[in-house]
Amino acid sequence: MTSPCIDIHSHFFPKNAPNFAAKFGESSGPWVTLHDHSDGTGMMMLGDKPFRPVHSALWDAQARIKELDANHVETQIICATPVMFAYDAPAEQAAYVASAYNDLALAMCADSSGRLRTLAQVPLQDSALACRELTRAMRAGCVGVQIGNHVGPREMDDEGIVAFLQHCVEENAAVLVHPWDMLGGERLKRWMSAWTVAMPAETQFGIMAMILGGAFDRLPAELRICFAHGGGGFPYLLGRLENAWHRRDIVRGISLHPPSHYLNRFSVDSAVFDPRALRLLVDTMGADHIMVGSDAPFPLGEEHIGDLVRNQPGLTEVHRQQVLTENARNFFRL
Amino acid sequence: MTSPCIDIHSHFFPKNAPNFAAKFGESSGPWVTLHDHSDGTGMMMLGDKPFRPVHSALWDAQARIKELDANHVETQIICATPVMFAYDAPAEQAAYVASAYNDLALAMCADSSGRLRTLAQVPLQDSALACRELTRAMRAGCVGVQIGNHVGPREMDDEGIVAFLQHCVEENAAVLVHPWDMLGGERLKRWMSAWTVAMPAETQFGIMAMILGGAFDRLPAELRICFAHGGGGFPYLLGRLENAWHRRDIVRGISLHPPSHYLNRFSVDSAVFDPRALRLLVDTMGADHIMVGSDAPFPLGEEHIGDLVRNQPGLTEVHRQQVLTENARNFFRL
Repeated sequence: MTSPCIDIHSHFFPKNAPNFAAKFGESSGPWVTLHDHSDGTGMMMLGDKPFRPVHSALWDAQARIKELDANHVETQIICATPVMFAYDAPAEQAAYVASAYNDLALAMCADSSGRLRTLAQVPLQDSALACRELTRAMRAGCVGVQIGNHVGPREMDDEGIVAFLQHCVEENAAVLVHPWDMLGGERLKRWMSAWTVAMPAETQFGIMAMILGGAFDRLPAELRICFAHGGGGFPYLLGRLENAWHRRDIVRGISLHPPSHYLNRFSVDSAVFDPRALRLLVDTMGADHIMVGSDAPFPLGEEHIGDLVRNQPGLTEVHRQQVLTENARNFFRL
Repeated sequence: MTSPCIDIHSHFFPKNAPNFAAKFGESSGPWVTLHDHSDGTGMMMLGDKPFRPVHSALWDAQARIKELDANHVETQIICATPVMFAYDAPAEQAAYVASAYNDLALAMCADSSGRLRTLAQVPLQDSALACRELTRAMRAGCVGVQIGNHVGPREMDDEGIVAFLQHCVEENAAVLVHPWDMLGGERLKRWMSAWTVAMPAETQFGIMAMILGGAFDRLPAELRICFAHGGGGFPYLLGRLENAWHRRDIVRGISLHPPSHYLNRFSVDSAVFDPRALRLLVDTMGADHIMVGSDAPFPLGEEHIGDLVRNQPGLTEVHRQQVLTENARNFFRL
């Protein structure tokens, strides 16, 4: 019998997204829309440019549930596709957009017989507005919040972002950090390297900002925070960082302890696509800090959700059950 | 008894560097110079700005040999500190600079009773000049060449760089690829993140360019090429790339095979600073494709050269000897 899993990292986009260009003017945005090809496929559009080919599981709860059944996914947590964040828009626009998307995500969940739950998005460029939308969204039924790993030059140790994370603790909201707005510019446009090179670098840098920028030192241990894609490059490059921390003062920032000290302060998902990488992840983070994350329904996600964990050699059954379901239940209070 | 090792990744800067500003004019450069504090320490300068605090093992063969003895390093291969590359300078200037530095590196080796060997640097922005200097430097006694992983927007699959690598095969020159000119700009200046985040990303991208850009497909299997710092993020992120290669056509570039097919086409050094990362490296690359590389004498290098490999649990003695000495002897024809 195939063990069920809880998938904590998947994305949605609403079929009938509000027309933000009509509301905020043609010079606003660009905003994301969906061209539904009515054959089970579609194209996400950014302004008038094709952004990504998609299929109906992205927006249709019933199509999504078929995929969950086929993959033995008991519960799946959905969240915004990062291009929906609107962190570059005026904060009031981003707050409106977040609220609209959050309600549409909750509507998709309401159509799922309890199989789908959702994370909120917030206007992270404005800490007060972000806190307000988080409170509203949690009361409306979200199980946590997804944020990007930075807002322009403001990293995870930014005062406003730390204040928002403190608010998440107070609201009992779990946090998923997703890489976005990737470094590397023109060079990394080849071969989707923004996804394969820059996203893991962004996530690594986000974790480093929490550590070296003193955010973990300032925030309480109750903060439940998870980084996508197996923590990006962080777990493999921890040794390089740890060595540098001990040997060069300018690496240390304002952290009170070396990087390895903070490994019990965050979780990661299992989206590493290779048993050798998952082994390093288990050895580094511990099985109690890893949850299944598929990145579904996008093609760069795990095709057979949870199978990497189900088939992982050398994992005890206790640890396997932690990663497949138990950690997620505790982390998101499901 | 401590097993000796061969260290294939270490850097030098000559104590008495030529005055390139006097030769090429004050508007040229900036060039690298050394302020020797005459107390065993010094400061590398880039133009008139401090670049990096250093100590005399960087320029003094006798000081270096003391460190080799203390670390049970039988032979160490030195190469330029990447800031010496001059890839941004006019090609004729870079050719002159490479030739001058190569002769000074060979002079440092000549003062080492055979303990030090050197890799050449070349003006990689001009393939013809790079080939000419490689030929000259190999005949003068270099054991191979170090190149940066890109020249501005020209990556490892660039026609001129592939032509140069073909010339390396013909000249029997081993190649070490070192990350440099790191992506990430202002954001990654914090906490030396250019070294801890961007360097591994550059190296990963360099390996990807060889694969997805078809360079490995065009070059013969005889090419001996090694990537620094344990292949950067590549080994850990291979699963993410492999999954993407199979699932999105735009990831594949012009590669004939999936990324994992090319793992036997290159080597990496062992500079990962953590036994869990080294285990992933051995599991992914195979012990026959890893050589000790310390990044000495810089502070972000391995403090006790070779000890990570010497103390690695789970490594067979056959594999340990391969990584400590045998692979390097074969790779560099020592």
